[in-house]
Amino acid sequence: MRRRIPEATIRRLTHYLRCIEFIKETGAKILQSRDLATFCSISDSLVRRDLSYFGEFGTKGVGYSINDLEKHLKKILGINKIKKVGLAGVGNIGSALLNFPLMKNGFHIVAAFDVKDELIGKEINGVKIYHENDMIKVFREKNLEIGIIAVPQHVALDVANKMIEGGTRGILSFALLQCPLSKKIPLRYIEIAAELEILSYEIEKEG
Amino acid sequence: MRRRIPEATIRRLTHYLRCIEFIKETGAKILQSRDLATFCSISDSLVRRDLSYFGEFGTKGVGYSINDLEKHLKKILGINKIKKVGLAGVGNIGSALLNFPLMKNGFHIVAAFDVKDELIGKEINGVKIYHENDMIKVFREKNLEIGIIAVPQHVALDVANKMIEGGTRGILSFALLQCPLSKKIPLRYIEIAAELEILSYEIEKEG
Repeated sequence: MRRRIPEATIRRLTHYLRCIEFIKETGAKILQSRDLATFCSISDSLVRRDLSYFGEFGTKGVGYSINDLEKHLKKILGINKIKKVGLAGVGNIGSALLNFPLMKNGFHIVAAFDVKDELIGKEINGVKIYHENDMIKVFREKNLEIGIIAVPQHVALDVANKMIEGGTRGILSFALLQCPLSKKIPLRYIEIAAELEILSYEIEKEG
Repeated sequence: MRRRIPEATIRRLTHYLRCIEFIKETGAKILQSRDLATFCSISDSLVRRDLSYFGEFGTKGVGYSINDLEKHLKKILGINKIKKVGLAGVGNIGSALLNFPLMKNGFHIVAAFDVKDELIGKEINGVKIYHENDMIKVFREKNLEIGIIAVPQHVALDVANKMIEGGTRGILSFALLQCPLSKKIPLRYIEIAAELEILSYEIEKEG
């Protein structure tokens, strides 16, 4: 497992999980690498190469047991156990996330945080909203492993550092953080405006 | 301009725009490559290399006029003119997007689409919601250049192909499309579950 795995492979593993969720609904028990390949619009051999990084599973000529493959993939991605998440920012994106079925992907938003008086103490979809001043304490008490940042950009770095002080192991941020974090932990971004801007660039490039 | 520009460079250009938005609020008129570098936690020379792809702008020893740099960057990204967007799916994510200030980034959501009777004909934040059956027609009539897909995965491909038939030039999808598009156009994804899964992988890898 110490071999360096390309990020593109890890991303495709998540696509294989989407495919499995989809195929499971049909009641199937077995799938072929070809099914994954078709679903993801990639080649059969790429699927087999991706899976080979993680040892042999599946039987030649028979295919993969869907349940086993799902279990393996979830274990590789570290979501065989539910991960507890704290969400900072209950605006448009934050509210959408609270109503999003992340639990089925292995993530449980346990607490949310904001600074607006009218939100503090309320619940959305069963998740209590705390004041951002209590973030370090709540992250510690509830052992939150992942922090999601959905606050405005100018406060995002401060929020991130509070999450780190609270013991978070990784951060997913919708706002670009300015300056490095106080401690080096995995940090990923979802940048809606940037994705549209890059798409716009690609459109213009195509002519 | 025909030189192949790495995607990482294009993404950093969007970060430079975020920095410019931020610095403009302070009233500054000039910035140095160092300011962009600090904001993005990268090296000064990387900033200069990124900008050099697009010719010389800025004066040695003086820095960049913020307004000129912003104009240049927006032109490179094709957002010097507002791009018109159609949004399919007015659920949690779709509603969040309708309330999101994308206009300041150069994107105007002009029409939204859903299949729920109770939504059709309504407006959210001034954007009218049409039935998905009218998508091709509305995309054509309003010359929508970008389609955003925020519908469930099993209908996403169908929606994408309707947008293409309506003449969209590019698609940003929150749902993974199964199978290739009916026409090759720029397609980007924002995959919230996948980003959390990859983050989880990175957390476990760190130990």
